[in-house]
Amino acid sequence: MNPFEILAVDSKSRARRGRLLTSHGPVETPVFMPVGTQATIKALSPDEVHALGARIILGNTYHLSLRPGAQRIARLGGLHAFMAWPGAILTDSGGFQVFSLATIRTIDEDGVTFQSHIDGSRHRITPESCIEIQELLGSDIAMCFDECTPYPVTRDYAKASMERTVRWARRCRNAHTREDQLLFAIVQGGVFPDLRRACVEALTAMDFPGYAVGSLAVGEPKEVMLDVLETVVPDLPHDKPRYLMGVGMPEDLVEGVWRGIDMFDCVVPTRNARNGMVFTSRGALQIKHSRYADDPEPIEAACTCYTCRTFSRAYLRHLFMAKELLVYRLLSLHNLHYFLTLMESIRDAVMRGSFEEFRRQFYARRCVEEPIAD
Amino acid sequence: MNPFEILAVDSKSRARRGRLLTSHGPVETPVFMPVGTQATIKALSPDEVHALGARIILGNTYHLSLRPGAQRIARLGGLHAFMAWPGAILTDSGGFQVFSLATIRTIDEDGVTFQSHIDGSRHRITPESCIEIQELLGSDIAMCFDECTPYPVTRDYAKASMERTVRWARRCRNAHTREDQLLFAIVQGGVFPDLRRACVEALTAMDFPGYAVGSLAVGEPKEVMLDVLETVVPDLPHDKPRYLMGVGMPEDLVEGVWRGIDMFDCVVPTRNARNGMVFTSRGALQIKHSRYADDPEPIEAACTCYTCRTFSRAYLRHLFMAKELLVYRLLSLHNLHYFLTLMESIRDAVMRGSFEEFRRQFYARRCVEEPIAD
Ligand SMILES: [Zn+2]
Ligand SMILES: [Zn+2]
Repeated sequence: MNPFEILAVDSKSRARRGRLLTSHGPVETPVFMPVGTQATIKALSPDEVHALGARIILGNTYHLSLRPGAQRIARLGGLHAFMAWPGAILTDSGGFQVFSLATIRTIDEDGVTFQSHIDGSRHRITPESCIEIQELLGSDIAMCFDECTPYPVTRDYAKASMERTVRWARRCRNAHTREDQLLFAIVQGGVFPDLRRACVEALTAMDFPGYAVGSLAVGEPKEVMLDVLETVVPDLPHDKPRYLMGVGMPEDLVEGVWRGIDMFDCVVPTRNARNGMVFTSRGALQIKHSRYADDPEPIEAACTCYTCRTFSRAYLRHLFMAKELLVYRLLSLHNLHYFLTLMESIRDAVMRGSFEEFRRQFYARRCVEEPIAD
Repeated sequence: MNPFEILAVDSKSRARRGRLLTSHGPVETPVFMPVGTQATIKALSPDEVHALGARIILGNTYHLSLRPGAQRIARLGGLHAFMAWPGAILTDSGGFQVFSLATIRTIDEDGVTFQSHIDGSRHRITPESCIEIQELLGSDIAMCFDECTPYPVTRDYAKASMERTVRWARRCRNAHTREDQLLFAIVQGGVFPDLRRACVEALTAMDFPGYAVGSLAVGEPKEVMLDVLETVVPDLPHDKPRYLMGVGMPEDLVEGVWRGIDMFDCVVPTRNARNGMVFTSRGALQIKHSRYADDPEPIEAACTCYTCRTFSRAYLRHLFMAKELLVYRLLSLHNLHYFLTLMESIRDAVMRGSFEEFRRQFYARRCVEEPIAD
């Protein structure tokens, strides 16, 4: 049975309103997944994240397998129990981190050998071991092991890498045993339309329950990313969820949904919060700016999050200047509330058939003159 | 009208069960006051601290006057509004920090000149300006400006310093205008019983609504601290609250109450939490120890705090090893819960006339063999 149900489609764009059934409850799409790299959404407790409305989060296979270890998490009842998260979890393949964090890495047909960025220890990961780790973690959605290619990349390298990723996807599917876990495939092929199309064709022939678009948000211009989506999405099966990995900023979420994406994840709301950057409907602001030193207003007057209901910009700025731990939590809470509320509004708009109008107003609000990040 | 009411006295010790009325509600004593140095109890939100049962916290005059500034806090509605704390606040005099943190300081009869530890800027604080700052902060209890002498200290220095502190206390009383703020005096005199007695005599003649015992917990042996309490407390007026500043460990709270102390403050529960040390009824433990790597049990099975109800030692150790921000909050929450619950148990025991038995059992539980801090 297809765990993905489409509840509404937009008449002006490729946007859809859907519902993905997981072993830990339904996920309303389009959805933004907060990132819990090391079995925690940084600075927030799981009950806070759940209260914000999140029903699915992302865990990082690379990080968790190095520390505290997948076997250990399995002994302690799996990732949900370990981190006390009641909702669904998607684990990435670890491929992105192997290529971006590990200090030494060599790829061969069978897999990748790399050194840990934590202690320099040597590890080997193959499609089979990647699936084994994700089954030990017990996530609701596992990702096929893939190579995330950089931008720019040569056509030759992108082709060879994409073809290997397809062979790895087949091995992942063959190795995968957990029936309570969905296995998604990842479309590669860089910025080359024919490679992307060939990849989609090969992967969809294997009939996965969901598809991700990989090797985007790796430094390419925004238009290039959107072009790739225009190429890939129409070829993906209509009735399967589509996941744009590692994206993005609020406008990327709007544009991604417009182009038919159902799932997103990004560290932006929490990472930027720790750097003092907070999102509002009128743009972003840097809380450390001296103009907020005496500002009695909340980050955003209309925001209903705990931070905005309770504290002034002046207080948040004081905490940030004093490097007080509380501020990272309060700003993360607000930013995640902003992202999750944005997605909720998008879902409502698609459901009501007013997504085009929503998108217009989204940009109109941002045109208002407002202090933005310096 | 005396804002302090004694509800019960212990027959075996000097312990008392009391209630101190403040402008922000009643405070049940004996009480432990969490320390909110920079207008935040480190790593915790004010609603969490209140939910833990705290009804009075401490703010640091020295820190707040340097950053963000007392005038600024006053403009923003006072310290309670600034940090969104609904309960009572006691502000210290800043004397301790001037002597322990400021880089250059010179004392004269009129006051102290010092350089900020933050940016090296020069500042001058006098008894009058100390009171002005605390009135701007709007705390419920202000402290007289004093000099905290080190341990050891010569008798000559302790005498001269104590006598100046008495003169400063008179100036503070004269400068103090806010009727919604109680002004407590601080007993000095080092480890010299006759100096402590002379100080008590001089200060009580001025009839303050409360008295603190200063210059303890500055490195002296525990017996010396307890000896000073044995000297000072019997001379203090029975019907006024007694505050032991900067103390302490759980056993210090038990012994302080035994000797007639009503109020305590200390950074220990939150600072030690950030270093991975957690308190239990059987002793302290270091969460980073490898013996907890696979431990599915909570910090303390009988503890009802969010941390113990939700997470295993293995998970907390993982967060600590990964330096995840959440762990500082979760351990601070548990430690503060431990301290506040301990004080609640002490209050119940004194009320029921069973404090001697409580004290016996407090030590008996600690004799059990248990992993303790390394
Ligand atoms: Zn907010
Ligand atoms: Zn606990």
